[in-house]
Amino acid sequence: MNESKIIKPRKLSGFMELFPNKQFVFDKMIEKIKNVYIKHSFLPLDTPVLELSEILLAKSGGDIDKEVYRFNKGDTDICMRYDLTVPLARFVAMNSEQLHYPFKRFQVGKVYRGERAQKGRFREFVQCDADIIGNEELSLVADAECLKMVEEVFEELNLNIVNQVSNRNILFGFIEGLGYANQSKEILSILDKINKIGKENACFELEKLNINKNDIAKLIEIITKKGKFLDILNEIENLSNNDTYKLGLSQMREVYSYLKAMGINEDKIELNLGIIRGQDYYTGTVFEAVIPDHRDFGTVCGGGRYDNLATYFTEKKFPGVGLSIGFTRLFDLLDSNNMLSEIKPNNIDLQIIPLGDTLDECLRLQSYFSKHLICEVAYENRSFKSKMKDANKQQIPYVIIVGENEVQTKIYTLKNMIKSEQYSLTKEDCLSKIIDKN
Amino acid sequence: MNESKIIKPRKLSGFMELFPNKQFVFDKMIEKIKNVYIKHSFLPLDTPVLELSEILLAKSGGDIDKEVYRFNKGDTDICMRYDLTVPLARFVAMNSEQLHYPFKRFQVGKVYRGERAQKGRFREFVQCDADIIGNEELSLVADAECLKMVEEVFEELNLNIVNQVSNRNILFGFIEGLGYANQSKEILSILDKINKIGKENACFELEKLNINKNDIAKLIEIITKKGKFLDILNEIENLSNNDTYKLGLSQMREVYSYLKAMGINEDKIELNLGIIRGQDYYTGTVFEAVIPDHRDFGTVCGGGRYDNLATYFTEKKFPGVGLSIGFTRLFDLLDSNNMLSEIKPNNIDLQIIPLGDTLDECLRLQSYFSKHLICEVAYENRSFKSKMKDANKQQIPYVIIVGENEVQTKIYTLKNMIKSEQYSLTKEDCLSKIIDKN
Repeated sequence: MNESKIIKPRKLSGFMELFPNKQFVFDKMIEKIKNVYIKHSFLPLDTPVLELSEILLAKSGGDIDKEVYRFNKGDTDICMRYDLTVPLARFVAMNSEQLHYPFKRFQVGKVYRGERAQKGRFREFVQCDADIIGNEELSLVADAECLKMVEEVFEELNLNIVNQVSNRNILFGFIEGLGYANQSKEILSILDKINKIGKENACFELEKLNINKNDIAKLIEIITKKGKFLDILNEIENLSNNDTYKLGLSQMREVYSYLKAMGINEDKIELNLGIIRGQDYYTGTVFEAVIPDHRDFGTVCGGGRYDNLATYFTEKKFPGVGLSIGFTRLFDLLDSNNMLSEIKPNNIDLQIIPLGDTLDECLRLQSYFSKHLICEVAYENRSFKSKMKDANKQQIPYVIIVGENEVQTKIYTLKNMIKSEQYSLTKEDCLSKIIDKN
Repeated sequence: MNESKIIKPRKLSGFMELFPNKQFVFDKMIEKIKNVYIKHSFLPLDTPVLELSEILLAKSGGDIDKEVYRFNKGDTDICMRYDLTVPLARFVAMNSEQLHYPFKRFQVGKVYRGERAQKGRFREFVQCDADIIGNEELSLVADAECLKMVEEVFEELNLNIVNQVSNRNILFGFIEGLGYANQSKEILSILDKINKIGKENACFELEKLNINKNDIAKLIEIITKKGKFLDILNEIENLSNNDTYKLGLSQMREVYSYLKAMGINEDKIELNLGIIRGQDYYTGTVFEAVIPDHRDFGTVCGGGRYDNLATYFTEKKFPGVGLSIGFTRLFDLLDSNNMLSEIKPNNIDLQIIPLGDTLDECLRLQSYFSKHLICEVAYENRSFKSKMKDANKQQIPYVIIVGENEVQTKIYTLKNMIKSEQYSLTKEDCLSKIIDKN
């Protein structure tokens, strides 16, 4: 061995690294999300973590450039992916002829943002995305399907959410109707941050855009509308005669009718005109799910409809709708709020402890029990007493003790560690007792 | 939308990217591997893809430095991980006080090697590792457990393997016994590549080390020994009196006795003294599994025992034993040799096709069937005929056609697309027919 000096072991800051028993829960939750996607006939895509910079930065504005991990390898300018949408666009554009439409793919994978590390922000995080991509056109049923999946995902995760839904055409059209079509992006971006900067500052910024006070009041009012779909749709029906506005309303009505047919849980969804979503590629349905008991968690799932996925890579038109869950952040919030269930030190159902020179018999027993449950042999070179103590500390529910007598008689001592009871049984009876948990 | 020019979509070479239906099979196989690890009470670890370069390169020789993706972000010198062992060592050294020993972790994750792209070599690939780490000491039962897991993993994957096992102390001791203790590394490295360079070249290189011809013949002979454990152990028992040699034999005997108790399948394992494994951190058991019908695949799984996992990060001693499967390469080989089963265009069990204005009824039906199977509604704006044709092409086994009459009667036309039969049934009867596959 080298006699090199010791390097202090440390990991990069801003990177989550869970203990394996917690990672097990993380993985289980991811599995549940994937299974909802699979049930809705989505198939997995796994694009590379590395992409050519010219691909990954094709559409990005200034901000993302700074955050992205970018480097050269030989002559190649490479980036680590910062989301799963651009890789999807690249994949669809590259393989558009071979895909079947609507193309339904999910991707669960790590993405990278080299931003300043701060609490609750991670530089590496798992995103769980599902998107439906059409060829030239895509039915609004797809929007409803995504909304239904949001409901089902959080039901599976046992988290009570409300999915706040809007349609960007409503606000776009309303602004257009007021006569500010040319400034709609700037206006939406101010309205989008109203919760962050406060109403007063928002008004002030809108005034700077030369919006008249009356119209500002109307804008501020409309984005406060939220509630049951039909209530709100009826309430705002005649607020504007603008065509885009009418289109937004009719799209919402259509999506809602599909949701009803799909049996959506009306308690988990609301129409909320305050939902704008910054990224300007959304062009219809938009949504953000929140946990009402934990508004401080912010958006736990978001998404929406976009006219064209792959503008930068092809002239063909691929409209799509999708949802995205920033799972690492969500898991971290659940963890720090003690909202994770089932964190156990291990998954072991049964530990077999040798007493004396009985290791071979223990291993034979393990191979019998392992067909039905997770069974471990305490084969370490430690005292019987310390092994029993340890089994207790590790919260192992059942222990079988195998002494030399047991090797002869084939009758084993089974201990129920929770009830502090013990029995003398054949291996078959041990198994039934453990499986019946009695 | 921007009027930016179109960028030709392409991905980096040397990176695998599967179509989603194939990725589904990839994921299923990974799941099977994970489940074997979990059954053996391993828990998952998920270390970051990025590590500080001083950590990742602490132990590496020249070669790995060249292959690694390394870059600076701000003042930080960062590497992408090139294996899962160094991150494990870092994790154990950082958290040694909080872990329970033997520490059994698996990690399934992508690793990165920026080497020259060539057929069958990937720059990003999934490794499936499982290791058992002891604190100061670790029983040889752990070695047997890893070997048993190799058997079970490939049984689950339905691949016929032979796991070729040796113990490095046998050859080390043999070389020592011949009087070449100081040159044992050089000698082993020549013997290790004998299949690549040929026997003659190996002899020539050994001569250059001043090994006498008689001893060269002995070395060449011993590494050809392979077969049933007990046969080989008996055959080579007295080839050397060296203590390390004897130690190697007795370790192999002990591991074999545990394997017998575990009920190992003797057809899937052999003692093979030609197994050396390049990396010099192995110190006892070493193994390489091959597929006898596809020797050209090379090693599909390898691993072994090491004295000390975390030498570079701590003065504490953590002996371990582990196995590693380079899954991306294996999958690619299976794929290109048509050895993957179950590649279907999709997973859809049932497609519901509206005929006329019956979309809402279709969605209601979908929500009924989706509780039991994967059901899709053909909601695209296309003709009924083209949808039927498509369902056929997509190999969807069952189709339900919902016309306006069906909405009234609640009796639906179910088509078995494989048998080309059709039935008029209630939704409940449709479901039973599909589930019973009759």
